[in-house]
Amino acid sequence: MISPHRRPTSADVAMRAGVSRATVSMVLNGRTQGTVSEANQQRVLEAAAELGYTRSALAISLKERRTRTIGLITDEIATSPFAGRMARAASMAAARENYLVITMDLSLRENTVDDAARLLAERQVDGLIYATMGRIRVPVPKVPPGMPLVLLNCEIDDADDAAAAGLTTFLPDDYGGARRAARRFAETGHRRIAMLSDDESSEAGRAREAGFRDELAEYGIEPRIIAAGWQLDDGYRATAQLLAQTEPPTGLFCIRDRVAGGALHAAAAAGVEVPRDLSVIGFDDEDFFAERLTPPLTTIALPHEEMGERAMTSLLALLRGPLSGGGDLEASPVIIECPLVERQSVASAPPL
Amino acid sequence: MISPHRRPTSADVAMRAGVSRATVSMVLNGRTQGTVSEANQQRVLEAAAELGYTRSALAISLKERRTRTIGLITDEIATSPFAGRMARAASMAAARENYLVITMDLSLRENTVDDAARLLAERQVDGLIYATMGRIRVPVPKVPPGMPLVLLNCEIDDADDAAAAGLTTFLPDDYGGARRAARRFAETGHRRIAMLSDDESSEAGRAREAGFRDELAEYGIEPRIIAAGWQLDDGYRATAQLLAQTEPPTGLFCIRDRVAGGALHAAAAAGVEVPRDLSVIGFDDEDFFAERLTPPLTTIALPHEEMGERAMTSLLALLRGPLSGGGDLEASPVIIECPLVERQSVASAPPL
Repeated sequence: MISPHRRPTSADVAMRAGVSRATVSMVLNGRTQGTVSEANQQRVLEAAAELGYTRSALAISLKERRTRTIGLITDEIATSPFAGRMARAASMAAARENYLVITMDLSLRENTVDDAARLLAERQVDGLIYATMGRIRVPVPKVPPGMPLVLLNCEIDDADDAAAAGLTTFLPDDYGGARRAARRFAETGHRRIAMLSDDESSEAGRAREAGFRDELAEYGIEPRIIAAGWQLDDGYRATAQLLAQTEPPTGLFCIRDRVAGGALHAAAAAGVEVPRDLSVIGFDDEDFFAERLTPPLTTIALPHEEMGERAMTSLLALLRGPLSGGGDLEASPVIIECPLVERQSVASAPPL
Repeated sequence: MISPHRRPTSADVAMRAGVSRATVSMVLNGRTQGTVSEANQQRVLEAAAELGYTRSALAISLKERRTRTIGLITDEIATSPFAGRMARAASMAAARENYLVITMDLSLRENTVDDAARLLAERQVDGLIYATMGRIRVPVPKVPPGMPLVLLNCEIDDADDAAAAGLTTFLPDDYGGARRAARRFAETGHRRIAMLSDDESSEAGRAREAGFRDELAEYGIEPRIIAAGWQLDDGYRATAQLLAQTEPPTGLFCIRDRVAGGALHAAAAAGVEVPRDLSVIGFDDEDFFAERLTPPLTTIALPHEEMGERAMTSLLALLRGPLSGGGDLEASPVIIECPLVERQSVASAPPL
């Protein structure tokens, strides 16, 4: 009798089937080659099923020196409400090629990326993706020699280092997305336009501000840029202030959907109707949020699915190696388009 | 020279250090016992460092038959915006005892829980937690014999099965939390009270409705229960309708913070001031949300941290076994309190 808290071994299977361990091994590895009788093969398979014996993936891995497992290091994606789509798409791309993704979230432990890479390497992952929730710059991670690494949503501090390290990264085109938002306002006749930006000069914030300004400049419009923040109440507060002024904007671009949510609420409280009196565009196309606001929010989508999928596809190509024709590094960074998602928060500018 | 895409082995270390593989093994396993000279020990350590050689956790695991790894099977927690706190707290509790958590999200593949348990068992995890984003009933998962399993936020379809399977589960006290919300309204003088509930008769919805009704009954108050839904726009729509009636409620309990967010927005659009004209209580205490609404939302907190931490602690105690004194099963289900988080969306009832 096997204790309920010990896993069955091939020796247990051998004992139950009344055969040798070598026979068990041959049967379960499909290498009987006429040396094991049909009856004994049957006995081994039945005994293994009865005991719930599973071949050890670890033992198999040690022979093959690969585990078909990818380590996904994230700063806080798995445990925060944001950017989960990247992890989902990456894992789905891996699953299609029969790879399993092991996630390790840095917010959980006081680990650095380098620690996480080492811990995952000890578990013999075949490759690593380092994905950050927000777009940030990071130092070159130290990974064990020979361990393929792809970056997702983060870029190396200094472009030269990245090239030297041979790392590919996948980034959203924040700049181009913001230009799309600006164009939408300009083409619907808005001239008094404001942007609620962040208050910390983040990578994403700077790119979105620059894109918004540059595009509006082509129409001869200069937007007001307000340092608001990233959260609902930041959007509420800044919008309440804007709408209390004598010449409030008719077009409002928000650095993030959350901020736009606060802006819609503040507009309602001020008796300003969206989109009749005020058009609003967000950024992110956040799940369960942008499409659930009232009115449903027109926004610029972060291409998180595409980023996650392409990063994983790139890593798996690296694993297959150059001979597969898929092992060449893509020119880094790979910048992925942020499309406009049209909903109901934008209308033609009201007569001023 | 080692190819950049092959991991160094102990043979590589031996060659570089000019010693045998047996010597490398003894030095790196700390078992030199006077048989390896200081100079050779030094050479091995230097060679290992230069090559970036890491001992294989898999090889170590095979010897010890344990991996200090826990498999966390989730339905969609890791990739959805919700309930990440449970996973975070569970992983932190594991990290404190030097266990690593491997997350496998069922939304990623077309796997059942049973498939996931098998895949993780092949990777020799020491134990499993099955955690669901929302509180649901599930069939008894089929896990390999001897594999300890703890449930988190889900309960077994039939109570007898759970007892037979010897499974412990950790659930939030939705019922008691809803009683707290009701008491808060009653004690601040509200008599016209409504609840925006779900429209699908979920476990959480039924428990929250029952608690809310039962507590108000003690004050002789019968609330209006409206089948609204779980999202922002559900709250907006239902609240707009309520406030358009001749006798609108002065106290509004929302099944979830998201619904309360929509309610606050609809109140603003109707010119109804919160909390002066209308008091609102949510449920969840969702990160980056409840405290960021305007006004900051008074709510009933889901105890996700405590649930995640206790589930992991319980599993690790099971792994230590009964001799440690910590291996006894807790009486299941373990129901964890949902406290009232007081913010600024509740005031005394206005004169009617």
